[in-house]
Amino acid sequence: MSPFISIIMGSSSDMPVMQEAAQVLDELQVPFEINALSAHRTPDLVADFAKSAHQKGIKVIIAGAGGAAHLPGIIAAYFPLPVIGVPIKSSNSIEGIDSLLSIVQMPAGVPVATVAVNGARNAGILAAQMIATGDEKLQKRLVKYKEALKNKVIKTNDEVKEKKFKFQY
Amino acid sequence: MSPFISIIMGSSSDMPVMQEAAQVLDELQVPFEINALSAHRTPDLVADFAKSAHQKGIKVIIAGAGGAAHLPGIIAAYFPLPVIGVPIKSSNSIEGIDSLLSIVQMPAGVPVATVAVNGARNAGILAAQMIATGDEKLQKRLVKYKEALKNKVIKTNDEVKEKKFKFQY
Amino acid sequence: MSPFISIIMGSSSDMPVMQEAAQVLDELQVPFEINALSAHRTPDLVADFAKSAHQKGIKVIIAGAGGAAHLPGIIAAYFPLPVIGVPIKSSNSIEGIDSLLSIVQMPAGVPVATVAVNGARNAGILAAQMIATGDEKLQKRLVKYKEALKNKVIKTNDEVKEKKFKFQY
Amino acid sequence: MSPFISIIMGSSSDMPVMQEAAQVLDELQVPFEINALSAHRTPDLVADFAKSAHQKGIKVIIAGAGGAAHLPGIIAAYFPLPVIGVPIKSSNSIEGIDSLLSIVQMPAGVPVATVAVNGARNAGILAAQMIATGDEKLQKRLVKYKEALKNKVIKTNDEVKEKKFKFQY
Amino acid sequence: MSPFISIIMGSSSDMPVMQEAAQVLDELQVPFEINALSAHRTPDLVADFAKSAHQKGIKVIIAGAGGAAHLPGIIAAYFPLPVIGVPIKSSNSIEGIDSLLSIVQMPAGVPVATVAVNGARNAGILAAQMIATGDEKLQKRLVKYKEALKNKVIKTNDEVKEKKFKFQY
Amino acid sequence: MSPFISIIMGSSSDMPVMQEAAQVLDELQVPFEINALSAHRTPDLVADFAKSAHQKGIKVIIAGAGGAAHLPGIIAAYFPLPVIGVPIKSSNSIEGIDSLLSIVQMPAGVPVATVAVNGARNAGILAAQMIATGDEKLQKRLVKYKEALKNKVIKTNDEVKEKKFKFQY
Amino acid sequence: MSPFISIIMGSSSDMPVMQEAAQVLDELQVPFEINALSAHRTPDLVADFAKSAHQKGIKVIIAGAGGAAHLPGIIAAYFPLPVIGVPIKSSNSIEGIDSLLSIVQMPAGVPVATVAVNGARNAGILAAQMIATGDEKLQKRLVKYKEALKNKVIKTNDEVKEKKFKFQY
Amino acid sequence: MSPFISIIMGSSSDMPVMQEAAQVLDELQVPFEINALSAHRTPDLVADFAKSAHQKGIKVIIAGAGGAAHLPGIIAAYFPLPVIGVPIKSSNSIEGIDSLLSIVQMPAGVPVATVAVNGARNAGILAAQMIATGDEKLQKRLVKYKEALKNKVIKTNDEVKEKKFKFQY
Repeated sequence: MSPFISIIMGSSSDMPVMQEAAQVLDELQVPFEINALSAHRTPDLVADFAKSAHQKGIKVIIAGAGGAAHLPGIIAAYFPLPVIGVPIKSSNSIEGIDSLLSIVQMPAGVPVATVAVNGARNAGILAAQMIATGDEKLQKRLVKYKEALKNKVIKTNDEVKEKKFKFQY
Repeated sequence: MSPFISIIMGSSSDMPVMQEAAQVLDELQVPFEINALSAHRTPDLVADFAKSAHQKGIKVIIAGAGGAAHLPGIIAAYFPLPVIGVPIKSSNSIEGIDSLLSIVQMPAGVPVATVAVNGARNAGILAAQMIATGDEKLQKRLVKYKEALKNKVIKTNDEVKEKKFKFQY
Repeated sequence: MSPFISIIMGSSSDMPVMQEAAQVLDELQVPFEINALSAHRTPDLVADFAKSAHQKGIKVIIAGAGGAAHLPGIIAAYFPLPVIGVPIKSSNSIEGIDSLLSIVQMPAGVPVATVAVNGARNAGILAAQMIATGDEKLQKRLVKYKEALKNKVIKTNDEVKEKKFKFQY
Repeated sequence: MSPFISIIMGSSSDMPVMQEAAQVLDELQVPFEINALSAHRTPDLVADFAKSAHQKGIKVIIAGAGGAAHLPGIIAAYFPLPVIGVPIKSSNSIEGIDSLLSIVQMPAGVPVATVAVNGARNAGILAAQMIATGDEKLQKRLVKYKEALKNKVIKTNDEVKEKKFKFQY
Repeated sequence: MSPFISIIMGSSSDMPVMQEAAQVLDELQVPFEINALSAHRTPDLVADFAKSAHQKGIKVIIAGAGGAAHLPGIIAAYFPLPVIGVPIKSSNSIEGIDSLLSIVQMPAGVPVATVAVNGARNAGILAAQMIATGDEKLQKRLVKYKEALKNKVIKTNDEVKEKKFKFQY
Repeated sequence: MSPFISIIMGSSSDMPVMQEAAQVLDELQVPFEINALSAHRTPDLVADFAKSAHQKGIKVIIAGAGGAAHLPGIIAAYFPLPVIGVPIKSSNSIEGIDSLLSIVQMPAGVPVATVAVNGARNAGILAAQMIATGDEKLQKRLVKYKEALKNKVIKTNDEVKEKKFKFQY
Repeated sequence: MSPFISIIMGSSSDMPVMQEAAQVLDELQVPFEINALSAHRTPDLVADFAKSAHQKGIKVIIAGAGGAAHLPGIIAAYFPLPVIGVPIKSSNSIEGIDSLLSIVQMPAGVPVATVAVNGARNAGILAAQMIATGDEKLQKRLVKYKEALKNKVIKTNDEVKEKKFKFQY
Repeated sequence: MSPFISIIMGSSSDMPVMQEAAQVLDELQVPFEINALSAHRTPDLVADFAKSAHQKGIKVIIAGAGGAAHLPGIIAAYFPLPVIGVPIKSSNSIEGIDSLLSIVQMPAGVPVATVAVNGARNAGILAAQMIATGDEKLQKRLVKYKEALKNKVIKTNDEVKEKKFKFQY
């Protein structure tokens, strides 16, 4: 079976952030592939990747990048299905706001679905949600995932509520 | 047939921006509904809307909001399928950057697919792209839409190239 | 006696910041409760909490959150008495300015009383001040608290003034 | 009867924004007074005002200011009960973000309850909510106010939903 | 003779700003061509343009774009000679800071020479300066241009100095 | 008598803002001169001006500039007495924050006394205050100026307090 | 002899930054005093300090503060001679930009001479420059100080120029 | 042979960043010189440097600076050929955005080719590209450099693609 989702990042140094997208796709049992290709250093490889992705059966592309962060936008220029952008904060970036603005402020006609700075886990979930618009089983796994998030919060709330202060009830 | 896409905005004053999502869904022949409900003034209606949307067959929700802009995030808290957020610039907002950050910086587990400030047209296209991951006919309409964008640019380029300067070739 | 104040935070990881609100309420002898519930992961629990708080005798809610920080606003949507919001800076946030704008830029009709980034101690004092508008004894404790702040500054000023420089008087 | 709330602004040119606080207090039937005094041009009058307010029976002070916007903070230095700050955007300000930061980033011990840029209406509501912590009748008027907000949204939603698009349901 | 400089913009709506580059190249007698091609709507045309420019004898490319502003960076990915980027402020942009950061924060290996927001005139001068590193006649015209700037300032200074105030000397 | 204060601006187009410095110096009876010279277009004239100012008896220089706004800093590099910088907001500037940061963030050893964006009036007052450190008569005029500011505020406060609202006292 | 300069800071925790003002005044042989008083915790002491400073012979006040940073402005409200403001970056501040804007954006009539974030050394030099407008000996020491800065740069340039690269000349 | 490129920085403490420009010029075999001179502490040396550079055969100047960062702009005021500016982030700077704006927002007539914050390597490449507009051999070395960048990305992509996840293809 061909992969549904393709994860791509602008540099192999983005892997510590971007692997969270892979991890959540694993949890949600959604097949995927991973690449590290630069919009600026390997523009032709990125263009070939983006042009052929649709034919190869890829349904959603998750693209992470830092600094000027053109990778998601340039893939969206070619790929007719959804592209998700992950702004990545690095030591020379301006708190990640440079990458966020570079990714989100796309012109009319060519959207990039942008998530939070370093929000690769959410990019993975969002990609699964997109596939789930046409896949009832995955919808159910996503509903369970939401349930699990809730239960985890309920459990930690019990811990937080253990009395520590004199005037606490 | 039930609508695929639901467009919702925090205030009826957001309609001039948000109707661009409706227009492009019309062009792409994707059925949709429209509501104006406030996460802060009608929280129960928003919660009911977000909880029942999935059962009603809605596949994607497009939510636009200005200022603190909690509408997209609060819908994403309930809805297991994709939510697209549109930051809206208004006279009392801080260049729209307040809405953008309020929408995009969601916590792990609950993504909102954020588009540009006032980017409602792109929200409509993105919603169609999501549906198209499971709808080949819509994929083809999207490929044609991309083609039409290209041809429009080529045409205006011809106009721009008409000589106006002495040293222009 | 039921608690006057309810402290709530979006994640148990906010506890190191938010416990300063508890500490100052302890010092000012104002009863309170603590919860960690997420507006995005447990939206129904948050809605139930916010709807029932008023009946349970809660007079003020202090809500802390980071990133998109919808918790204070969503509680304010339900609770008819004051909600105080504490923006929390975290490693993936944009210097806390994202949370500050998400909390403070509320639409007309639904205010959140916002304090400084990580300003949980001030949130506790502000909550006590609100209760004190109808509680003369607490007013006196607040006046004493202000006095104590002053005396501490006077004492450290004496230390700072100890001569260390040649041309210092 | 002495006023419960005192509205103060840094300059009479802030009146177009600040009168919204007065209007909503009128609607909620909460007595108030209005002053225009500058923290920088009339510091002694402001100090006298802030020191004597408590004795005069004022329970909450709403202070609006633009630019460096020291008025709310300097009043909070003297007044032991809640101070609400309204950042005001003007032609020479930096989108109001200068006033917002000047008002909200108060040091530990001296909170200012900050509302949105130009958010004077919300300042009025927040002041009423504070008084309502000890006034059951006002609580009921606030619950009704929330109800009215909701009904207004429901009505405009009906208007927005009127079909205008081909693929709209 | 083939053009030395190529001016390109992301949209024909950028022409009012970008024509200032053309005007100054005319003044400095440097041949040039103009195109309006979008990195997002016509990515293949942009790639073809950028790949073939070097062979066609183009020495410098000036690229202007607003919003996410990927055009200069994507051209720099292909073109081995200097690319100058002009951030363009538009109604939906965030004061042009989005375009500025998208253009200037390029990764190591692929520079874009960025000028001020809407600074197309300076882009033209900078392009001429680059050509002038190997063209003594153009160097002389640039030295004269600097001289003319100086003389214009000296002339307006004389006007400004005309006495208008009592204590002015 | 030689002028005490020199007002200089980067462009004659800054005159509408900078003339406020002249007006207040007139009111305070402090002699001054005015120039419009550009740090970038007439660097030698600016250097000559800054080097010779001290010998000509100039005690304080007020320098206003927009955009990159190097004029105040470059004068401070030469002039051993105080330089006051006025950031000027223009249509292509980024809300004046670019000029503010360019002027205020000077390196250790070479200060520029920075005032608010478009704050030329305050630059004039500050210059007079500096001269007044050694001029008792001017000190008295400044004390009177402060008094006049106060009285103007008191007068407008009387106007603002005129009852307009039902619940206003 | 009474001190010419008064250094004041909002908190004794600002001493590591503010002592640089003291050090440079020592180097320039300008007498000074130091205080740590809070505009918010000890407003009356600050008002008394600011009102009496002029009578005590203080010619310039240097005020450093972080966060909302009202200290310089509130002193300027009372003191008729120059006030220099030093924005201080701390762990909860927003990169110091909050303090910078709180200090610099003063209203017309009440200037604060603002220096760089953490720029206490420059505040000391600027204070000395102000005194020097009426003190020829201090002018000479300032000219020497400028000379010393220059010589230090020339010396480190010699070190930097020592060849380390193959193509370096 | 005289150097083609001159690298200059505002302080010897900028050397760790700026040496990357030197390293890449070494790799590209472009002769250069290095200086550390301050626009504010040694303005005359900087002016002499900038005026004489053209006569000495320097074709491009790379200038790096932090904080107010006037060095690139002041050199561009004198030098008729290209000046490249490198904004440098330091501990007291505001994320480098202060230097970026100070360098890039130059007035019409006097451009500075600005690169990313700490982007000295790109400044070196850009300088080489400028020289290459008139030097075919260097053009070839630049084409090879681009090729080497591409090959390095391809190699690290192979490493990233090694399977680590269950659902990865």
